[in-house]
Amino acid sequence: MKIIAGIEAGGTKINCGIGYENGEIIDKISIPTTTPEETISEIIKYFKDKKFSSMGLASFGPIDVDKNSDTYGYITTTPKPGWSNTNILGEIQKHFDVNINFDSDVNAAVLAEKTWGSAIGLNNALYLTIGTGIGGGAIVNNRIHKGLTLAEMGHIFVKKEIDFKGNCPYHGDCLEGLASGPAIEKRTGIKGQLISEDNHVWDEVANHLAEAIVSYILILSPEKIILGGGVMKQKHLFPKIQKKVLEKLNGYVDNKQITENIEEYIVFPKLGDFTGFYGSLALALIDNN
Amino acid sequence: MKIIAGIEAGGTKINCGIGYENGEIIDKISIPTTTPEETISEIIKYFKDKKFSSMGLASFGPIDVDKNSDTYGYITTTPKPGWSNTNILGEIQKHFDVNINFDSDVNAAVLAEKTWGSAIGLNNALYLTIGTGIGGGAIVNNRIHKGLTLAEMGHIFVKKEIDFKGNCPYHGDCLEGLASGPAIEKRTGIKGQLISEDNHVWDEVANHLAEAIVSYILILSPEKIILGGGVMKQKHLFPKIQKKVLEKLNGYVDNKQITENIEEYIVFPKLGDFTGFYGSLALALIDNN
Repeated sequence: MKIIAGIEAGGTKINCGIGYENGEIIDKISIPTTTPEETISEIIKYFKDKKFSSMGLASFGPIDVDKNSDTYGYITTTPKPGWSNTNILGEIQKHFDVNINFDSDVNAAVLAEKTWGSAIGLNNALYLTIGTGIGGGAIVNNRIHKGLTLAEMGHIFVKKEIDFKGNCPYHGDCLEGLASGPAIEKRTGIKGQLISEDNHVWDEVANHLAEAIVSYILILSPEKIILGGGVMKQKHLFPKIQKKVLEKLNGYVDNKQITENIEEYIVFPKLGDFTGFYGSLALALIDNN
Repeated sequence: MKIIAGIEAGGTKINCGIGYENGEIIDKISIPTTTPEETISEIIKYFKDKKFSSMGLASFGPIDVDKNSDTYGYITTTPKPGWSNTNILGEIQKHFDVNINFDSDVNAAVLAEKTWGSAIGLNNALYLTIGTGIGGGAIVNNRIHKGLTLAEMGHIFVKKEIDFKGNCPYHGDCLEGLASGPAIEKRTGIKGQLISEDNHVWDEVANHLAEAIVSYILILSPEKIILGGGVMKQKHLFPKIQKKVLEKLNGYVDNKQITENIEEYIVFPKLGDFTGFYGSLALALIDNN
């Protein structure tokens, strides 16, 4: 069986590993994300003596995935100190004579769930991460969706019945500005993990997320919606969100996979905390992204 | 050159015609939409003695486009008297021994603009109709997008700063409930064509549409957005919408096709009132929808 390599580059740590093409992991390490020079040299050191036939690189963003662009493969305008304008793909590519597929963390995550998780066999699926930020990646017609730019679907606007101006520096009360981890902490003044399950903020957050999910359904019509990220570890949010999605759709989208089986339609990632790393391996498997 | 046939089935009239595969129309008629029996028999009579190698059928909805469904090719739950549960594709297909591609009016419209209009050569484009209702069709990765169901993107929710509960029977103040032709008339108490250009309702409608367009950009990332339908004949809406889209994005999507060229990014259909009929011809040209 082919051996493939994966790099999941996050803002605090970088997971590197190799596995078989069936998703079985052979070896995996975590490297802290320090300076680009130090971190990338650690990545190269890890893979240097390993054999693999292709690599996937799933990165935190914003990144440039336009192959016609001069900055293709770069982490671009990130606020993370030192990482702005880093040619992460180019620096790694020059040490390895294999194809490296480069994409965003959320696009890799939806591909992971399609390849080995809860969306196997589906042509259309959506992965959302609700954590420090809110982002989404979509499989459309069997491929990772890319349009003019990468999707930024965590920044859509939703209605608001509460008195909180939102904390997105670009849009104020967009979805991320209302329902991300930092927004929830700002709204309550309490650390996310310490907010009790019966705090009214969870109903409000479920309402915002449900409204956004209704938009994703009406626009993209995915066959499965996977909700990951730190906020979704609050598992009690799932039934709240599922119920509110059905209420808001109000029978307009008459499809039994939604109306009669919402628990299987809006789900937690089957690959759990490993979705991101599996995503980097899954990226290594595609012929042309 | 191949000769192709097109049927644009609307709620008040049905356009039937034939043309060359380069989009040159050879002949075209309009039939009033009366009962299904009468209307479909008029359609069949028109095409009976004509020669063509394939046909496109673009229909008002809701329609079933799922080829695995027992009601594929049907107009399903329409409120239009007599037309509910009409097997429009099947009734026409049995008279003609050619392939008939069946799709929604908005999907046909975006295909028309991609084939002969303002979106030639683009892999991702969006067509919205803002009229009696609001609907959208998208080209994603060079194909008409279909997910679990047809998109219903006119029904997404938007923020609301006004005191109007909306007139969508399903969702109240969704986009269609706030910004469709009937909603605008209900808000003002004035027939749409008679509302003066300086009425504040146009600013509000532009604001709702701009917010929805921002969602479509963040989720689908089209390379071009085409706005048709009766409401968009109010051409003064275009600069208002374009300006508000840029304000709401607030530089977050940093792409020059949007930020520096918004007049070419959000446009009126190049095919004008013929977009729908050209869409039915364009449908006839695709190998497999």
